[in-house]
Order: sequence, then C-alpha cells, then structure tokens
Amino acid sequence: MSENLFAKHQDTLHAAVNAIHSRDYFSPYKESPSPRAYGETANKDGENAFKAHIGSDFELQMPGIVGKAGSEKSPYGFDLNVQYPLVDLDQLLPAMDEARKAWRDVGVEGRVGICLEILERINKASFEIGYAVMHTSGQGFMMAFQAGGPHAQDRGLEAVTYAYEAMTSAPGTATWTKPQGKHDPLVMDKKFTVVGRGIGLVIGCSTFPTWNTYPGLFASLVTGNPVIVKPHPAAILPAAISVKIAQQVLVEQGLPPHIVSMVIDEDPAKPCTAELAQRDEIRLIDFTGNTPFGNWLEQNCRQAQVYTEKAGVNTIIIDSTDDFKGMIRNLSFTLSLYSGQMCTTPQDIFVPAGGIETEDGHKSFDEVAQAIATGVTKFLSDPERAGMVLGAIQAEVTATRIEESKSLGTVIRESEALENPWFKDARVHSPLIMTIDGDKEETYMQELFGPISFVVKTADTAESIALANKAVKEHGAITMGCYSTDEAVLEQIEEAALDAGVALSCNLTGGVFVNQSAAFSDFHATGANPAANACLADLAFVANRFRVVQSRRHPK
Amino acid sequence: MSENLFAKHQDTLHAAVNAIHSRDYFSPYKESPSPRAYGETANKDGENAFKAHIGSDFELQMPGIVGKAGSEKSPYGFDLNVQYPLVDLDQLLPAMDEARKAWRDVGVEGRVGICLEILERINKASFEIGYAVMHTSGQGFMMAFQAGGPHAQDRGLEAVTYAYEAMTSAPGTATWTKPQGKHDPLVMDKKFTVVGRGIGLVIGCSTFPTWNTYPGLFASLVTGNPVIVKPHPAAILPAAISVKIAQQVLVEQGLPPHIVSMVIDEDPAKPCTAELAQRDEIRLIDFTGNTPFGNWLEQNCRQAQVYTEKAGVNTIIIDSTDDFKGMIRNLSFTLSLYSGQMCTTPQDIFVPAGGIETEDGHKSFDEVAQAIATGVTKFLSDPERAGMVLGAIQAEVTATRIEESKSLGTVIRESEALENPWFKDARVHSPLIMTIDGDKEETYMQELFGPISFVVKTADTAESIALANKAVKEHGAITMGCYSTDEAVLEQIEEAALDAGVALSCNLTGGVFVNQSAAFSDFHATGANPAANACLADLAFVANRFRVVQSRRHPK
Repeated sequence: MSENLFAKHQDTLHAAVNAIHSRDYFSPYKESPSPRAYGETANKDGENAFKAHIGSDFELQMPGIVGKAGSEKSPYGFDLNVQYPLVDLDQLLPAMDEARKAWRDVGVEGRVGICLEILERINKASFEIGYAVMHTSGQGFMMAFQAGGPHAQDRGLEAVTYAYEAMTSAPGTATWTKPQGKHDPLVMDKKFTVVGRGIGLVIGCSTFPTWNTYPGLFASLVTGNPVIVKPHPAAILPAAISVKIAQQVLVEQGLPPHIVSMVIDEDPAKPCTAELAQRDEIRLIDFTGNTPFGNWLEQNCRQAQVYTEKAGVNTIIIDSTDDFKGMIRNLSFTLSLYSGQMCTTPQDIFVPAGGIETEDGHKSFDEVAQAIATGVTKFLSDPERAGMVLGAIQAEVTATRIEESKSLGTVIRESEALENPWFKDARVHSPLIMTIDGDKEETYMQELFGPISFVVKTADTAESIALANKAVKEHGAITMGCYSTDEAVLEQIEEAALDAGVALSCNLTGGVFVNQSAAFSDFHATGANPAANACLADLAFVANRFRVVQSRRHPK
Repeated sequence: MSENLFAKHQDTLHAAVNAIHSRDYFSPYKESPSPRAYGETANKDGENAFKAHIGSDFELQMPGIVGKAGSEKSPYGFDLNVQYPLVDLDQLLPAMDEARKAWRDVGVEGRVGICLEILERINKASFEIGYAVMHTSGQGFMMAFQAGGPHAQDRGLEAVTYAYEAMTSAPGTATWTKPQGKHDPLVMDKKFTVVGRGIGLVIGCSTFPTWNTYPGLFASLVTGNPVIVKPHPAAILPAAISVKIAQQVLVEQGLPPHIVSMVIDEDPAKPCTAELAQRDEIRLIDFTGNTPFGNWLEQNCRQAQVYTEKAGVNTIIIDSTDDFKGMIRNLSFTLSLYSGQMCTTPQDIFVPAGGIETEDGHKSFDEVAQAIATGVTKFLSDPERAGMVLGAIQAEVTATRIEESKSLGTVIRESEALENPWFKDARVHSPLIMTIDGDKEETYMQELFGPISFVVKTADTAESIALANKAVKEHGAITMGCYSTDEAVLEQIEEAALDAGVALSCNLTGGVFVNQSAAFSDFHATGANPAANACLADLAFVANRFRVVQSRRHPK
C-alpha cells in the first residue's frame, strides 16, 4: 500500500525537488479559497465541519487516554468548548517508542508516500482548518485559509522534500569494488538503512498553529520518528484536525495511529511542555514561540536536537525611494496585516533626521513618519477591509501591551479598538505608531509583540544601517527591509544584513510584502541570528533527524 | 586565482560527488607508498623533511605569537623536541573573526578550489606527514602513511564534497515568478549567500592526528569558517605540517594565513582546550577523544555546534562459520593492527558456551577462544611483521592498562613486551586476550583502550546478540562484527545493529577488516549511539556549518 502512495505523489515530489533547487515559485496547493479550486460546497462544508467541533469531544487514537481538557476561545468573541483527550505520558511514550521499528521498516519511499498523502488530505480540509485557524489565532479568514492551509501545506511538503533529498543522498544498497592490482578486487555488498532518532516533539504557537507546526512535524515524521504535536493551549483545534488526518492515513496503511499523537495540558496554567521536552524518549524538538522558553529548550534538552524559532526585532531602513506612494502603500499593508502579530512584521523603521529624497522631491522625517501613519489609517478606513486584514488580537496580553506602549514614544497614530463587521465581540485593535529618537535603543529594541511600531529618527542612513545591524545581532530578527535608490547604499545594507545573518527585502512597493515568505523560494529565518537556530526549510533542518546505519558483507 | 583552483580540481570534485552517491570504491590519493605513485625520492625526501623538524622551531603565520612550546616523544623511543608557536587567544580570535568576511567573499567555488589545492599539497607531503604520524601516534609506517596520508586526505575530500553538495543545494541567484491570473506576475530577483557560523575548532587525538582532524577541519573551512586546529599535545607535528600547507595556499590566494591557525597548550598538564572551546567566537567544534571530555563539550559549549567521536565497546558475535581459518586469520590481524588502539577495534567477542559449527565440524567455546589466541601469536611470530603491524603503544597509560587488566578474566594469551626490529626503545606490547563469562558485564563492557580483548562465553547466540546490542546502546560502539552461516541469524544481528545504531560487518574472512572504514563508501560512526554524535561524513556533518542569507528585490 505504502509504495502506491509514493507512486501516486511522485509527480508532486519531483516538482518540489526541482523547486527547492531552482527557488522559483511553486505550490501544488491552491491558495485561492475559490469554488473553482476547492469545489462549490467546500467553503460551506468546511465551515460546517468547523462548527461541528464546537462544544464537542475531539477523538484521537492514542494509548493511555486518561481524561479530557480544552478551553480555547475565539479571538472573535466566543468559546470553542472543544474537549481533547489527555494522555498518560508513561503509557504513550513507550508505545510510540515501540512503533519506531514499524515506522522505520516502511522505508524512505513508504514514509514519503504516506506524508504526501497526509498533506493531500489536509489540503482537502483547508476550509475546516482555515476556520479553525481563524478562530484560534484571530487571523482574518483569507489569511487563515491561505497561511493556515495551502501555504502551511507548502512548508510541510518542503520539509518532506528536503528530507527525501537527504535520505536518498546515499543509496539503499551499493557494491564496493576495490582494485587489488593483479589480484582479484575486494568486493563488498553494502546496505544503508535510514533510522530515526527517537520521538519528535513539535511545540506549536498560538498565532500560526499549522504554518509553524507542519515543517517540524513532517521533517521528523518522514525521517522515521514518531511525532507528538504539543499545540499551544489557545490553538489546539487546527493541530488536532491535522493529527486526526495523519492517524487516518496511518491506520489505512496498517500502521499504529499513535505514530502521530497529540499531547495537551490538563491545565494551561501548569503547562506540561518542559517536562515532556526533557523526557529521554524525545530526541527531536521543534519549537515556535517566545525567546525565554526557546532558549530554555536549547540549553536544557541536551538529549534532543532542538530547532527553535523565537522572537526578534524586525527593521526597515528608509534611505530614499523613487516610489514614495508605493512604499507607503506597501508598508501600510505590512503593518496592518494580522495586526502585526507575525514574526516577520517590522517593529522599527529607521528614517534619517534630515529626511529622504523621493520622486516627489525631498520629504522631511516628520513627513515620512506622518505618511506611514496616514497610510495605515487610510488603508483601514474601509471597515470590511480593516476587519479582514487586521483580524483579531490573539491574546488579551497583546491588547494590554498596545495600551501600555503608548508612552514609549511620540504617538503619531493612535491604536483604536474597532468593531469587526461580522463578529461584534472580536478583540480588534488597529496599529499604534510612534516616533522615537535613535538613541532610545533600550525602548525600541525590546520586542513589543503586536501592532506596535516605531519610526526611529537617526542621524543618517549610515546610523540606520548600524542600528538595524545591531538590532539583529543582539535581539534577533526574521526580516529586514530597506528602501534606497542608491545602489551603493543597497550594497552597504546587504553587507549589514549578511553580517548580521538576516533575510533582506529591498524596495518593496508592489504586491510582495516583507512579512511574507514563500515556501520553496524564501528561506524563512536564517538560523544565523538570535531569532532562530534553524531555517524553514533547508538541508540543516532535516539532515540530523535521522542516521544511516550500514551493514556490509562479501557477495556470495 | 581562486576560480582557477576550482577549475583545476573540478574533475576530482566531480568524481567525489559521484562516489558519495554510489558509495563505490573511490580515492584520488594513491594509498601505496611506492616510488611509482609518489616518485623515486619521495620516501627519502619525506623522511628527511620529517627529520629536519626534530629539534627545530616550527613556524606558522598567526597574529599574537607570544612564545613557544612542545614536548612530543616518539613512541618508538626518542624525543621530537619540536617547538611550536604559542598564541595569545585575545589577539588570535578577533583577527580570525575579522578574516571571516574575506573568506566568505571568496565564495563557494573559491573555497572549494582552495581546499582541494590544500589537500593536493598535503597529498604531496604524504611521506613527511606519514613519518610524523608514525612518530607521534606509534602507528607502523605503512599504516601511518596510509591512514595518516591518503586515507585521511580521502576523508578531508569527502567532507569538502558533502559541503559542496549542501552549499550548492540552493543556487546563488534565482528569479521567482508568481502568476497572478490575468495580471502581470509578481517577479523577484533573489540572491542566496552562504555564510559561515563563526570560528571552527578542531580538537585532535593522539592516535589518528590527521584522519580524525581533516574531516572537521575541511568541513568547517570550506563552509566559510576560519578554523583553529588544537592537536593533542602528544601528536602536534602532523597537524602543524597540515596547517602550514593550508597557510601557504591561503597566502598565495591573497588571503590571511591565519584563516587556518593552530593553538597548543603552553603546558600539556594544564590544557587550554576547555577554555578555548567555550569562547563565544567558537561556533563549531569537532572533537575526537575520550568520552568524558566529549560529553563535557556537548553539555557545556552551547554557543557552538559540537561534533564528537568518543569511545565505545566494539563487539563481534560468532555464531557459526564456513571458513574458520579465514575468520581466525581475519580476527588475528584485526586484533593486532596498531595494537588495538583504533576506535574500531573489537573488545568483546561473543561465543556461545556450547561452541559453534564450522566447515571442520563443531568447535567448542575453548577451541574457538584458543584458536583466536593462537592465531594472533602465529600472526606475530615474524618479528618484522609484528613490528610493522603492531606499531608502538602511543601512551604509557595504555601500557599500564594492559598490565592492570590481566586479572579481569582468564588469560588465554599473555601480552608480551616485544622489541621492535628497527627502534630498540619502542614501546611495544602484543595483545592480551582473556575469556570471561557473559554475566561479568561490568568488567568487559567498560572500555579498555589498547590491545585488550575478551572472548565472552554466552548461553547462546541469542544472548550474544542481546549483549552486543546492550553494549552499543549503553556504552556506544563504532563497529560490530559477526560470523554466521545462517541467514536468519544474520537478519537478527542486522536488526540488533539497526536498533542500536551501529555499523555491522558480516563474515569478514578475507582482505577487509572490521576496523577499516573506507571514505566515500563506509560511514564511519553513525551518530546514533553514545560513541559519537556525528558520522564521518554525511550531510548532517556539514549542513549546519553554514547558513544561507538571502536578499530579494523586484527586477528593474
């Protein structure tokens, strides 16, 4: 059966292998939530499937189920009331360990086929998962569908593709023939088997419960490791639906369903993650979330390979532009999208005190700052567009942070509590934008998660570059952006980004945004600065999740 | 200039790329120390070059030289008296850090070309290095030449080859074109730059000062990291010659020579390695040596990627054979080679109490054990052969261990102090072989480095397999060997080896030995058991030594 799945998905795999090498655009999963792409009833069916979960018991197949728990609340203002199984780790982990051999023996192609089948089924559930992502993360529906559906699936496929490349770097068998001059050559038949490391643990976050979970889940799984998904207590449902689909495919293939399992906290106030992450059976950990816990995992879980994506301070350097309007439009969307709750959203925009040159002539610092503030306000003036793009604030603590940050700089755009046109109890707050002097590093270089940003007044672009470089090196960053019409300045900024180890986007004035990262083409995070010790996805992300064990003998 | 070196060595690289995928025999460096391969005067020239080092000051180009030190003694009974530069780390490390940008800007092909040129020059110095390896490690000359020369160079080339594959997995530039239905596509030009992690540190061992140093050295170097070689205080010269050659090539290419540097201890009794390994500038560490320090590095050097090869307990399972004489001959060489001072030498040979079946009929446990003991004695009966194969005992502590181990089991072959035919003061001790009961695990499962082995009496082959599996899982192993004529038993042993994560050799009765590992075909160590957290070499060994930093912009 497994072999058939590899054959079934071979074309997709082949195209994905090409894509990771060409880095051109590629996605087998349609990003448009249109009836043409997903069928006439897909949206309604998905919404109904999502609604059917509300107030229900969610079933998963795992040994050692001892109870249930769950207390998710939609940021759009209602309780999900889904109850998920609680498991006894002392029953689950040994059972998963025992399943390692069966999973290993499925072989590389077998596991790749099963993972691609799981991804295809997840793709078919994109609406159901999209609504689940929306009502846990607070993303607007379009983003929840795209980033939580097809784009997350892309990242999962990308991880499988890299792992396939790494696992097939050595052949399954080989013959070694060493010439011995006039004598017969020495000949050995060799067998090379890919073996997993142990059990993988994937610790999810509340803002991107699938996009940040699938890479680690599929990278560990396809390389021969059973996987536990430990979702954020505020965003369990999207992970649970994904795990359930994986279990269905595993069972169909005659494999133990608990090769993919889910563990949640009995009480979110007393999370079990740290204890789970230190269990000896756990040999791979993927984490997305806050810096202190990510650092703790890196320092303390020595029995495991640990892959982290933590927080950082993303920056934009504005030196000059020949499309001021395009720049403002682009930044307005960037700052508004999902209320700045992306790990890629810029926090600090460096602008020289003397202002900048544009196609409309010189703009002073204040004019630039004001244009950004006004741009955001104009962009959000249509309540429906505002509702869709801003989404909702995932956590109350973020809403509080906006309020508390107002005194950190000179406010040039107030954050307002808005009403979502479709969900009157949604927690919606528009971006807070402030100006601040470049010497107030301790203020603007602390990470302020949410729709909070600073236009930072610097002496000149050279200082902007130095400060942006410093922010990355000391606090980490996933993205850096810049605007300049001067090639020499762009080169200096590229050098600063290379030196700090952060991905750079130059002069974005159209339909690409600094906070967007495309699977198969953009490396998400570099692993080269404090914001992350890994990248989604590259060979380093997969190559150490398995080992090759060889056996050799002379031919008969 | 660098580009020319890539072109010059392109054929070698191409053949090496093929080899890591086919895993067939490959070596561009001739393993025979013959005049035909290396030239009529190569041996004499190399010996003279080695002798010229004795009692001399060895010069290297590094900033911050503050003195000299060195106290190597040949295990063949004389002092080397070579003095090497001592450096001030507070001058060396910042200078190496500063050289990172120049080394990065040489680019992937430039660095590959330079590394292959260094390897070619090292190859030309194989005799000089061979004598240096002989008179530090104590290896016999033939082995010192082969394992310390061409085979070590093979492992260096293999690391460069894997790194080349990993670094070129993504292109240097790409164009990303995303269709937008009826609208113009979104297009971005992207640039991907390989950047090193920081400074690499390679901590060498006394027994294989080049074979175990080149993989880490070249893997870190070619991926953009300046490298410090920290040789074992007893085996500095082979590393120093290699570093000097690297520096010569770097200078010819207009690069700072200290991109490859060497640090030694002022006083070997107070090693500087731990302090050096914890410096923040050190981001990659390769270590070969004892388990406690290897574990310490893994646990404490959190700022770095740490690759270790430590110690273990290698095992042989004897179930049955159809070539008893061939088996005994093979094991006799294996136990004698370099006096068991290889990380791949078996320590425990499991034989059922009831004996085994052979082509000559049944052999009792005692007959098998005695045949091994007698086989070794016969093999070593020719003093010249004994001198060449045994070499010398590298460290006095190993000689002491042989003496102290005599009471651990029932001695069936005494270790004797032998005289080397060419060096009368050489420290030579033949293998000690004992029998022991399978229940004395605490005795035979401790690592006893040197020519010390046990024939372990087990209830049956099933128990042999269980004990061998346990030895690997609990104490680590680089190799496992077995003899059986029963395919079902071989399958059980393969499963046990897979489960424990150790490389298996079956039924070696000819010219291949369990302690030999061929670059490009055999993975040396698996990284899957406590003996090592990495393998020489695979993608995992190289993929995390660099990061890819991207820059993207719309085309003009």
